[in-house]
Amino acid sequence: MGRTLIRGGTVVSSTGRSEADVLIDGEKIVAVFAPGSAIFGFDVAASADTVIDATGKYVIPGGIDAHTHMELPFGGTAASDTFETGTRAAAWGGTTTIIDFAVQSYGQRVFDGLATWHDKAAGNCAIDYGFHQIIGDLNTDSLQAMDGLLAEGVSSFKLFMAYPGVFYSDDAQILRAMQKSAETGLMTMMHAENGPAIDVLVGQLLAEGKTDPYYHGIARAWQLEEEATHRAIMLADLTGAPLYVVHVSAKQAVAQLAAARSRGKNVFGETCPQYLYLSLEENLGAPGFEGAKWVCSTPLRSRAEGHQEELWQSLRTNELQLVSTDHCPFCMKGQKDLGLGDFSKIPNGIGSVEHRLDLLYQGVVEGRITLERWVELTSTTPARMFGLYGTKGVIQPGADADVVLYDPAGHTSIGLGKTHHMNMDHSAWEGYEIDGHVDTVLSRGKVIVDGNSYLGAKGDGRYLPRGLSQYLI
Amino acid sequence: MGRTLIRGGTVVSSTGRSEADVLIDGEKIVAVFAPGSAIFGFDVAASADTVIDATGKYVIPGGIDAHTHMELPFGGTAASDTFETGTRAAAWGGTTTIIDFAVQSYGQRVFDGLATWHDKAAGNCAIDYGFHQIIGDLNTDSLQAMDGLLAEGVSSFKLFMAYPGVFYSDDAQILRAMQKSAETGLMTMMHAENGPAIDVLVGQLLAEGKTDPYYHGIARAWQLEEEATHRAIMLADLTGAPLYVVHVSAKQAVAQLAAARSRGKNVFGETCPQYLYLSLEENLGAPGFEGAKWVCSTPLRSRAEGHQEELWQSLRTNELQLVSTDHCPFCMKGQKDLGLGDFSKIPNGIGSVEHRLDLLYQGVVEGRITLERWVELTSTTPARMFGLYGTKGVIQPGADADVVLYDPAGHTSIGLGKTHHMNMDHSAWEGYEIDGHVDTVLSRGKVIVDGNSYLGAKGDGRYLPRGLSQYLI
Amino acid sequence: MGRTLIRGGTVVSSTGRSEADVLIDGEKIVAVFAPGSAIFGFDVAASADTVIDATGKYVIPGGIDAHTHMELPFGGTAASDTFETGTRAAAWGGTTTIIDFAVQSYGQRVFDGLATWHDKAAGNCAIDYGFHQIIGDLNTDSLQAMDGLLAEGVSSFKLFMAYPGVFYSDDAQILRAMQKSAETGLMTMMHAENGPAIDVLVGQLLAEGKTDPYYHGIARAWQLEEEATHRAIMLADLTGAPLYVVHVSAKQAVAQLAAARSRGKNVFGETCPQYLYLSLEENLGAPGFEGAKWVCSTPLRSRAEGHQEELWQSLRTNELQLVSTDHCPFCMKGQKDLGLGDFSKIPNGIGSVEHRLDLLYQGVVEGRITLERWVELTSTTPARMFGLYGTKGVIQPGADADVVLYDPAGHTSIGLGKTHHMNMDHSAWEGYEIDGHVDTVLSRGKVIVDGNSYLGAKGDGRYLPRGLSQYLI
Amino acid sequence: MGRTLIRGGTVVSSTGRSEADVLIDGEKIVAVFAPGSAIFGFDVAASADTVIDATGKYVIPGGIDAHTHMELPFGGTAASDTFETGTRAAAWGGTTTIIDFAVQSYGQRVFDGLATWHDKAAGNCAIDYGFHQIIGDLNTDSLQAMDGLLAEGVSSFKLFMAYPGVFYSDDAQILRAMQKSAETGLMTMMHAENGPAIDVLVGQLLAEGKTDPYYHGIARAWQLEEEATHRAIMLADLTGAPLYVVHVSAKQAVAQLAAARSRGKNVFGETCPQYLYLSLEENLGAPGFEGAKWVCSTPLRSRAEGHQEELWQSLRTNELQLVSTDHCPFCMKGQKDLGLGDFSKIPNGIGSVEHRLDLLYQGVVEGRITLERWVELTSTTPARMFGLYGTKGVIQPGADADVVLYDPAGHTSIGLGKTHHMNMDHSAWEGYEIDGHVDTVLSRGKVIVDGNSYLGAKGDGRYLPRGLSQYLI
Repeated sequence: MGRTLIRGGTVVSSTGRSEADVLIDGEKIVAVFAPGSAIFGFDVAASADTVIDATGKYVIPGGIDAHTHMELPFGGTAASDTFETGTRAAAWGGTTTIIDFAVQSYGQRVFDGLATWHDKAAGNCAIDYGFHQIIGDLNTDSLQAMDGLLAEGVSSFKLFMAYPGVFYSDDAQILRAMQKSAETGLMTMMHAENGPAIDVLVGQLLAEGKTDPYYHGIARAWQLEEEATHRAIMLADLTGAPLYVVHVSAKQAVAQLAAARSRGKNVFGETCPQYLYLSLEENLGAPGFEGAKWVCSTPLRSRAEGHQEELWQSLRTNELQLVSTDHCPFCMKGQKDLGLGDFSKIPNGIGSVEHRLDLLYQGVVEGRITLERWVELTSTTPARMFGLYGTKGVIQPGADADVVLYDPAGHTSIGLGKTHHMNMDHSAWEGYEIDGHVDTVLSRGKVIVDGNSYLGAKGDGRYLPRGLSQYLI
Repeated sequence: MGRTLIRGGTVVSSTGRSEADVLIDGEKIVAVFAPGSAIFGFDVAASADTVIDATGKYVIPGGIDAHTHMELPFGGTAASDTFETGTRAAAWGGTTTIIDFAVQSYGQRVFDGLATWHDKAAGNCAIDYGFHQIIGDLNTDSLQAMDGLLAEGVSSFKLFMAYPGVFYSDDAQILRAMQKSAETGLMTMMHAENGPAIDVLVGQLLAEGKTDPYYHGIARAWQLEEEATHRAIMLADLTGAPLYVVHVSAKQAVAQLAAARSRGKNVFGETCPQYLYLSLEENLGAPGFEGAKWVCSTPLRSRAEGHQEELWQSLRTNELQLVSTDHCPFCMKGQKDLGLGDFSKIPNGIGSVEHRLDLLYQGVVEGRITLERWVELTSTTPARMFGLYGTKGVIQPGADADVVLYDPAGHTSIGLGKTHHMNMDHSAWEGYEIDGHVDTVLSRGKVIVDGNSYLGAKGDGRYLPRGLSQYLI
Repeated sequence: MGRTLIRGGTVVSSTGRSEADVLIDGEKIVAVFAPGSAIFGFDVAASADTVIDATGKYVIPGGIDAHTHMELPFGGTAASDTFETGTRAAAWGGTTTIIDFAVQSYGQRVFDGLATWHDKAAGNCAIDYGFHQIIGDLNTDSLQAMDGLLAEGVSSFKLFMAYPGVFYSDDAQILRAMQKSAETGLMTMMHAENGPAIDVLVGQLLAEGKTDPYYHGIARAWQLEEEATHRAIMLADLTGAPLYVVHVSAKQAVAQLAAARSRGKNVFGETCPQYLYLSLEENLGAPGFEGAKWVCSTPLRSRAEGHQEELWQSLRTNELQLVSTDHCPFCMKGQKDLGLGDFSKIPNGIGSVEHRLDLLYQGVVEGRITLERWVELTSTTPARMFGLYGTKGVIQPGADADVVLYDPAGHTSIGLGKTHHMNMDHSAWEGYEIDGHVDTVLSRGKVIVDGNSYLGAKGDGRYLPRGLSQYLI
Repeated sequence: MGRTLIRGGTVVSSTGRSEADVLIDGEKIVAVFAPGSAIFGFDVAASADTVIDATGKYVIPGGIDAHTHMELPFGGTAASDTFETGTRAAAWGGTTTIIDFAVQSYGQRVFDGLATWHDKAAGNCAIDYGFHQIIGDLNTDSLQAMDGLLAEGVSSFKLFMAYPGVFYSDDAQILRAMQKSAETGLMTMMHAENGPAIDVLVGQLLAEGKTDPYYHGIARAWQLEEEATHRAIMLADLTGAPLYVVHVSAKQAVAQLAAARSRGKNVFGETCPQYLYLSLEENLGAPGFEGAKWVCSTPLRSRAEGHQEELWQSLRTNELQLVSTDHCPFCMKGQKDLGLGDFSKIPNGIGSVEHRLDLLYQGVVEGRITLERWVELTSTTPARMFGLYGTKGVIQPGADADVVLYDPAGHTSIGLGKTHHMNMDHSAWEGYEIDGHVDTVLSRGKVIVDGNSYLGAKGDGRYLPRGLSQYLI
């Protein structure tokens, strides 16, 4: 690696852009300086081992995807991307950090679950990775274990108000966990859907012979997302826990989050590209079993009801703070097709880890968000939210040299046989065209993507211990 | 000036802090780099003409006060700070840019008003300055003149819903100006109080013998601020104009702004230190005529009604975006005392330009806002809001070297004979104690404040032409 | 008249229905009693002069139309219904009371205006009538006159935030009038549209050659109704005046009213049948000049924006309290056609006084409101709101015998040459079909409509002095 | 009984008052007529068996208390009023109908529970009574049973989101019951508190030695009432069930109900006198164990937070629709004292059935509600809400002759040894003074209270089968 100079580009931060060159020494950014090769007369370029020409490119901090599920066991199968394939696809798409979810299963001890995930990831990743901890069995032992999470670099844990019998926590459990969250500063992440109610509806729909993927969206009604979101907010209000609601898809849930934020609460929310672009009618409702490609939870929402437009707006107004993917890919053959004739057996998940930056950049092109907000939503805020800022999420001296050169004059056609690197037999984004392109990707100073070449290697990525959220006060 | 190195400090931006050194060459920041004296082996310190030790200090972008009124003629007198005295006081307080208001008076042409303000300021300022344009006579000629404002570096204009017969614009005039605002991108700034209604109440109170300063606050009821704020928002909604409401003091007005922002509108608001700390009961209601010190419009609000707490909260939630001073000082003797026996004759204004950074920093100490938000509220957002970002508002290569070293271990006692440099015979902030101190101030690379010494000179400051707001989409 | 017995019907009140017979002696209802001809053994029917069979009919209190403009001078012409023709048409439609607007014109004294309206109405009306007072010149003399209004039986006055140069009051005038309203208990009625802003838009549209009736609706944008509604609410909040907003058509204005009511304020609102059924696109936007038929202010609103549905809902939720007509008819030939080539010259108004009960009853048929709410909206609440309850608005002993037998098995086809009795050369409601029929109408004990016969006479109606609103607390 | 004439009084309805005489024949009101003894010349008084002079009195429909718990088993004891003692106390206070809650216990069949309650009440009541059905074990059998409830005259059922292990229903059960509610029209009544979360807090407080009655109010935080209220609303929204939330005490819960109503939903709420007058600080927080008197659920709320004022306002604005008592009395000795040293063992309940009309009337005296609203809140709306209107809740021909003469010139001192008739060893309302008095009470034509004499007998009251709510559309 040695000394690298990125010159001639436009550095974009969450507050603005500047013509500036970036100096990297080993794994770190060591200086950002005004264009030109000299600092106080010192010829920087001459001393660089490598000079990268960023002319015409945006120089941005590498993307941080705060919500992925590599190799996640689900419904008798497992997410089709391993840490190896998934993080490599992420790198192709300009994402240089993921925060994946370690799972404590029912009956398991928390740190055993975490250890399992360390085993899955260690030595396999293309980019740096951290963990959130799923608490799937919230008992006294788990509560005690939570005291030790921060020392392990895990500053957030996730609970589920959905999936009774699997990951589900009841309100008594949630309350106890949130008390711990308030006490330790760990962020409470919440899958906010009313699982017991959903399960009733699922049973009834199946009994009526409504077995197509479309009914996945009907069973998981927006009322049950709004409800659970409000419930989580109230329990957080009572305990003082910081709360982060994952994969928000219903505009009514956004309104609940916005109201809590307006009252000054430490309440946050993410959405995902699928909720911004796709819909119940067009995708879940596709003919035959094709809708299975887009079965995920929370589900895609009705375009007629206007959720997609409201979500874009919430990104502008900061009523939602960031965009993750909830990457959880399954192949149609052998995985999604487990749910032929019974939508409830379709593994839940969509693969997007590779396309998040591109899909959001298209929002810049279309005037939905600013260039600065794009960087904020995809990198700076995820870093601040999850205790990585300074090391990640920003182009500044002292930060890891995770840098992406994004080419606004480039073009990206998404689809199998085109730019697809995820381990899936289809793309949820087939046919999407992006007016921009990830040109070059550096991870801790090493160029891992250079145009159409992948220069990285399995194991490039390291585990990232995280601190507390930098958003709390 | 030459080459200056600021080393050992903690650079604070609106998103975080980093241990970094700052290199200045002439008037510009040319590099920010990881601590240590060498870049790629080059010994920076050795090449510096000046090395400033920032150990233990926060290194922040110089403050930008987006709302001042130096030498403003008002009620038969004029604000007591000239551009010379006022900007010097600002510098003492860590503010390195002001945006003052040029005035087009009734019957005058817009550019004649602007020229007058250029005459007042040119050669007299300690720090850089820009202008907003008050449109006090909104006629066809003025509308045409507005087309030329941006070319003059004036990207915002201000209208008054208050002060009938002086600056007042009626709704027909406001509508026309906002259409121009939407067309040109110029920011519409609004003094949002219902002047005709206020004047009725003023007349009635005086007729009842209620002549004390306290009644200034009664006449300017919050309902009349909420009302005008909503009216301005609706006219902006109709025309598509970006709207910035100045000196918001009523919590109900904040709620109106927040609702508009939640609908995705380009609507913004500032508050001022006086509305965060002072109150109708304690200050305007002080015995005898002392309340005159705090007569300003919008007025101080009731603490019993909770406005102050809500305003602090709105700074946290970004329902208000920045803090200016509305600096408009008058002496008690010979100025404020014009209103003895008739509160309506008390010149409206408070002097705060010197203390804004300190007063807000105290909010950091007390846990009301984060250190990062302090920088955002006082510098970064004002720069972005008013088209200065990149040149001002940020510590990054290419920016003007307006840098403040703020000492969190220092202390500031506010009051006459202590830290007071404004041209006033009293301080509105007498007795306030701040757990921090402005240590060193650089303006375009020149150290103008060094501990307790003022090293700058009249005329150091230059006119700053501004571009359009960088907040619009 | 003598003694009349209405038997066999279903008496409907605002809270429920009952099988009951109604005894009328002279002009008054003297008893309501359980079906059957005997009270304590006394054979009522045998003692009645007249027995009306109401079997299968709803027996309801006569309709009260709280907003009409008979013979109103407007834009160089005058509303085409005189008190004679207009009240007769009202009677045909089951309305037995109108409250018309006496006008104080600019430069005129209030009581002179009131006297003029007494002259127009006296001896000409088919049904009882009261007056609201329009204050078109709000000066010191007018304020004084307001003290005497209640003694004249006028308990409400109306101001205009629209129509600068005609009826317009500025905010200073409104504030003063509302102080009087708070002091006297007189209801402040408000035409809430921002007139000065509208006039700018009108001028611009005409200058652009947009002269069709459609542009009437564009110029009077919903933002300008919401704005004025909020402004009126804030001034009422400040003064303590009870406020009643007339002809609400924008859903955003409803939301403002609802918010004020939720805060416990004495704030009320009416809508009119045209805003419930008709729209900007279909009616104002009709080909050629036909849209002129539906030019009224506030204007018809966009169906795409959903105002109509929201208004119906607001009637269910009591966010609006009653339905009046704002009856103000103009013929197409010789009146509406004054605005050929200039929509701003089209006389503003729609004729509906005859059809209000029918049009609202259709809402009952379609499940939009309950039968009880129909009675409440069209009779009981208008009576309570405007100080007539007890005498009018209810079927109970002591009340005036204004009774309508409404036939749910009947049918009404609206249109010229069908049921049209208003003095117009067209119907704004041509082609509307109603699944019900006004069968019999009694005004103070006298049958004036009996099936298809009109039995009343010019001058049947008397002036109704009113007391204060019975809704205030 | 025979023929009774009530003459000279002022009949008050929910919309107004009138001077009218009331004729009763047997158990029914047969006529209401204009004052004077003659109808069409017939001398009514002469034909009456009894003439009651109501001069100076308000003649109102007998009170309907829609929420009582006579003889309710709770926490190892039972409510101290039997149907005999409780209904007699109710009669003393002007209440002539109660709707009590039949209980299906866990493991029991629904109709067995109902039968048990019929057994308790039959032949024992002083006034008429109906039943709501508590569903304490919501299984398939119970759902089926619900289809038969209406035929039994039970048109409403109640679920509990509180009390896990006793009456608690989880969200899956609630959803299923609400589907049944939507299908049948039965009103879903909800005890809306998050029981599982409360139980956690109770356990923690007790473990910390916080055992006083005050902590009952701390454990049942308002957030847990707001939360459950919103949850119930969302499940009702999803299923289309009509929803009625019982004993609302938190202002935030009111806001949730109001928002749902504003969206046009069939959502209703009651509050109780204790929440209007009493508070966490003053009552639950009384010294020693005295607070136990006021242990009820939902709990009394903090006066500092302003719940009481907001509840009164919600009665004015119709954001809450009616006032019941949740009468559930326990003696201090032998019952409440079960919770000495452990607040969670204090039987939950307050006795108020006797004082509801008086306590609310005091709100009329103090200008908080109108006289009409008093009648609406205590009689007319309960009748309409629960399918009794026409028979009960109104003074009109055909209605049961449940009539109260209320004396505004009288006075009532509440307390043991004064007006107390409930079977308790203390009064929760000791020392309350009312500027009015229940003078005479008729139940189905029989005078049961006459001044200070009780003329009724055990068994006067009959079971009242009810129809569906008359509020639904």
